[in-house]
Amino acid sequence: MQNFHGANLFEIAQKNHVDINEIMDFSSNINPLSPSPRALKFLKENLDLIRTYPDPSYNNLKNSISSYVHCHKDHIILGLGATELLINFINIIDPKKSLILSPSYSEYENNLRNIGSQIYYYQLNFDDNFKISCDYIIDFINKNNIELFVFSNPNNPTGSILTNTEIKKILNHTKAYIIVDETYIEFTDMDIYSCTNLISSFDRLIVTRGTSKFFGIPGLRLGYSLNSNVEIIEKFKKNQVLWQINICADIMGQEMFKDKEYIERVFKYVTDQRLKLTDEIKKINNLMPVESKGNFILVKVLKGTNKIIVEKLKKDLIFVRDCSNFKGLDDTYFRFCILDTKSNEIFIKKLKDIKL
Amino acid sequence: MQNFHGANLFEIAQKNHVDINEIMDFSSNINPLSPSPRALKFLKENLDLIRTYPDPSYNNLKNSISSYVHCHKDHIILGLGATELLINFINIIDPKKSLILSPSYSEYENNLRNIGSQIYYYQLNFDDNFKISCDYIIDFINKNNIELFVFSNPNNPTGSILTNTEIKKILNHTKAYIIVDETYIEFTDMDIYSCTNLISSFDRLIVTRGTSKFFGIPGLRLGYSLNSNVEIIEKFKKNQVLWQINICADIMGQEMFKDKEYIERVFKYVTDQRLKLTDEIKKINNLMPVESKGNFILVKVLKGTNKIIVEKLKKDLIFVRDCSNFKGLDDTYFRFCILDTKSNEIFIKKLKDIKL
Repeated sequence: MQNFHGANLFEIAQKNHVDINEIMDFSSNINPLSPSPRALKFLKENLDLIRTYPDPSYNNLKNSISSYVHCHKDHIILGLGATELLINFINIIDPKKSLILSPSYSEYENNLRNIGSQIYYYQLNFDDNFKISCDYIIDFINKNNIELFVFSNPNNPTGSILTNTEIKKILNHTKAYIIVDETYIEFTDMDIYSCTNLISSFDRLIVTRGTSKFFGIPGLRLGYSLNSNVEIIEKFKKNQVLWQINICADIMGQEMFKDKEYIERVFKYVTDQRLKLTDEIKKINNLMPVESKGNFILVKVLKGTNKIIVEKLKKDLIFVRDCSNFKGLDDTYFRFCILDTKSNEIFIKKLKDIKL
Repeated sequence: MQNFHGANLFEIAQKNHVDINEIMDFSSNINPLSPSPRALKFLKENLDLIRTYPDPSYNNLKNSISSYVHCHKDHIILGLGATELLINFINIIDPKKSLILSPSYSEYENNLRNIGSQIYYYQLNFDDNFKISCDYIIDFINKNNIELFVFSNPNNPTGSILTNTEIKKILNHTKAYIIVDETYIEFTDMDIYSCTNLISSFDRLIVTRGTSKFFGIPGLRLGYSLNSNVEIIEKFKKNQVLWQINICADIMGQEMFKDKEYIERVFKYVTDQRLKLTDEIKKINNLMPVESKGNFILVKVLKGTNKIIVEKLKKDLIFVRDCSNFKGLDDTYFRFCILDTKSNEIFIKKLKDIKL
């Protein structure tokens, strides 16, 4: 599997003979505030536990996740990241016909294609601010006998979103399985958008979550998913190795999900910066931001392509996501994420300086 | 998958209302000396890298392993542990007929059974000190058209071993694939026993290694395997997730394999203690140790069963491995591993005190 999802910082640093910290990576959607200090301290204090096998039932970690997502412990499955979990669920459900959004995170399509599913696309449009219509989805699923609808909420790269009320409506009015990738959900108002509250009532609903983006710890490879379907959980566990999560991720996770102060601080910071950056982009001639609920913003170049912008920024070691290879988009789009205030300021200044 | 391989310390500690450090775990074969201090220091100093995705090609880690095992970097595959790697290789080779030793580590049999392979057993015997005959294996493979021979070298739980010259002879005189699980190889004289020097010459040879036992870091879940068969490596990679190894294991591994002083110290300590403990057991009425090359020793109770011993030790929070569920053994055997000198002394004293 190749890494198409963000910049490979190690490779860039080596190629440019610079330290990894000199790169401004606006492409990987990782929260720039340091990981939870409380959890990091707990990890450092307990690092000697590398001498021990992890608890094979990951009791403490699952208790912590359970309180955080308000779901039953038995409904939690651990994995090396949201994408790994997603691939395994797609394999288990093995839908003949599936529906994805367009544009969307490429792994949904890649993995549905791998298992030979017939893929349908719901094209979101710039003119409509890439909004997702719940009623359109219900209608489409029923008319085409869709067995699986998989999407990221908020959607990557558009930042558009469905409420949990709308997701409930889809579940109530169709028979399809729904996989909701909640990788970016913590950047939104969870009470309105997260659908973990529906897990115990709908066994056709699967929620997958990573910790790389919001908690800023992609190095630890800690993902989890929620599902109440006993048969699916059994199938999943049958294919898992005994210890999926190493003890560093286990330890950090135990404390991280309890750190409410940190979680609120990240949410507030990203929300403020998103509004501010969206406004700043609007002021730049020829650029139009798409209203986003994530920690990233999709931008349309109104005349010409993204090429000059992407290349000029790269020369200053600033990396944004060229969106030309997203199905449903073209080379007039790029995506950037929210970094620290200093980097964000430099970024906006550079954008303003580029003649378009 | 259940954990039958050693004590679950978390469960035991909780059940007995004791701290995990009060348990003497002679069942899990983990080197009791602390992990490489040099590598642990390097991990602590670089812990902030959890903010970064691991290098998807794990260049530094693979360079380090490559120098350590004297194998080409392209022949290295990473995994969450020796057993995970082993399962995947068995699935890829998919042998109609396979040969394992008896007794041996149960996962070989479990996974061969899962894929419907016809399993043949080479029964090792107490009277012969559980020695493995290379000529017997060659003859058996050829007569029965065995497609895969999989074994641990040294063998768990007997500690018996084949030299690399003998393994080369098997490869030269049969057409079978051979998977050598070298989990315990670093406790032996590697020049005589390790067969990583054969990897580039024989593409039917696969070596798997963990780091839990010798390097004492089961919490980090770092395994690797060596194989020069391009087709097998391709198949393996196709089924792997993008980041198999989290950054803590990656960082620790980069430094650990270079720490020659540590590696020599562990080897010397375990070798000395093995000889000493073997002698001590010989002196105990009714117990007979099997000569071992590992960091563990199989013991036969000459009259009666292991039951009294296992139970009495358990009351003092000392856990040995009851070997009654090993195919090819019975309830007259138990296995213990080498711990710190103080624990070893207590263990021998307790054994002496038990009336048999």
